[in-house]
Amino acid sequence: MIEVYSWATPNGHKVHIMLEECGLPYKVIPVDIGAGEQFDPKFLEISPNNKIPAIVDPVGPDGQPISLFESGAILVYLAAKTGKFLPASDRGKFETLQWLMFQMGGVGPMLGQAHHFRIYAPQKIDYAIERYTNEAKRLYAVMDKRLAKSTYIAGPEYTIADIAIFPWLRSWKNQGVDWNDYPHLKGWFDEIAARPAVQRGVEVLTDRRKPLTGDKEREILFGAKQYERR
Amino acid sequence: MIEVYSWATPNGHKVHIMLEECGLPYKVIPVDIGAGEQFDPKFLEISPNNKIPAIVDPVGPDGQPISLFESGAILVYLAAKTGKFLPASDRGKFETLQWLMFQMGGVGPMLGQAHHFRIYAPQKIDYAIERYTNEAKRLYAVMDKRLAKSTYIAGPEYTIADIAIFPWLRSWKNQGVDWNDYPHLKGWFDEIAARPAVQRGVEVLTDRRKPLTGDKEREILFGAKQYERR
Repeated sequence: MIEVYSWATPNGHKVHIMLEECGLPYKVIPVDIGAGEQFDPKFLEISPNNKIPAIVDPVGPDGQPISLFESGAILVYLAAKTGKFLPASDRGKFETLQWLMFQMGGVGPMLGQAHHFRIYAPQKIDYAIERYTNEAKRLYAVMDKRLAKSTYIAGPEYTIADIAIFPWLRSWKNQGVDWNDYPHLKGWFDEIAARPAVQRGVEVLTDRRKPLTGDKEREILFGAKQYERR
Repeated sequence: MIEVYSWATPNGHKVHIMLEECGLPYKVIPVDIGAGEQFDPKFLEISPNNKIPAIVDPVGPDGQPISLFESGAILVYLAAKTGKFLPASDRGKFETLQWLMFQMGGVGPMLGQAHHFRIYAPQKIDYAIERYTNEAKRLYAVMDKRLAKSTYIAGPEYTIADIAIFPWLRSWKNQGVDWNDYPHLKGWFDEIAARPAVQRGVEVLTDRRKPLTGDKEREILFGAKQYERR
């Protein structure tokens, strides 16, 4: 059975949703990032960048176990393994990959910075709050414009690109956006939120979640000592 | 011939290097991001996120033209097209993809934020400078540790993951790191820098580059009006 080293964050949700959508059996191993478990040497063996999620599949493409980190790579792996949520044509695959990369390089990191400066940072820094709120609005506008003419983000099919983006937009309240400005994106969001597999996926590990705004959690997640712990 | 809409930035260099490494003929179409050409409606048709690089290949996987944006997706596309710089085995492909995603989701966006707050931002904000300098050091340490036991970032072969990371580390002076702390990474860096195709790739469009620190360029690249221009 696939082991998922994870936590209830947007990047964790992506993989939980994908596994639920594919109907693959899986076992979740919690990695409490507020307690610093992502720096455990055993976890670093499979996820050297000390980030969740990571997976271990006992049956990789060559029949041997394989471990993978980076949610985007895990989504592509699971899509290839099951033949699901990635178009059959090469053209469709590359068009999906470009929107998945848009999530990995833009939506994830930049909305993450918006969360940091709007919610988690111990100081309120106007310049940074404005910078990342503006970037959140820009990214929402890019997606809204795309979804005005496409049913799903990468084309006519629901794909891993949608699965990658959706969990980040669930935190819209922390991003300074107004859904009224993005009607096409909101319609897409509501449709995906209603999928039973998505509803199961976003609940995974939520019983373990604690606030990440305490001083100790802040130091573990954002502190200067973070990189020295490795 | 493949058309490359690009500029002399780390994400642009990735694609220029890959095309040189593959020996593919290509035509560069400059998109002057300091002059706002990334917001041109014709460019947005192929790159709706208003970022370089993007490509148009007149002969896509089905024989018809295809356009792609996001440097990570373009690298995978060119590797698939040529059979180069991506391992032959599925295992090797996924291991390369995870390190490519590490670059797309971590090295690129976070070193980009380091550049912003250390060099480009009109105010010096200690908290943000420290945050992204620490993250740069953390990422360099992750790569150094990896390269202590692996010849290239994804394994024994030089791949698109190396090509994706290299151009970002050329700007190490803007990231607050000290190469002496990362001897394995430095050895890898110097080896890649010496490759003739890499040396040709990083020169593409450098004759067009201008400083991006003027008020007008700042407003175009980082200003609040950026997302309203779409």
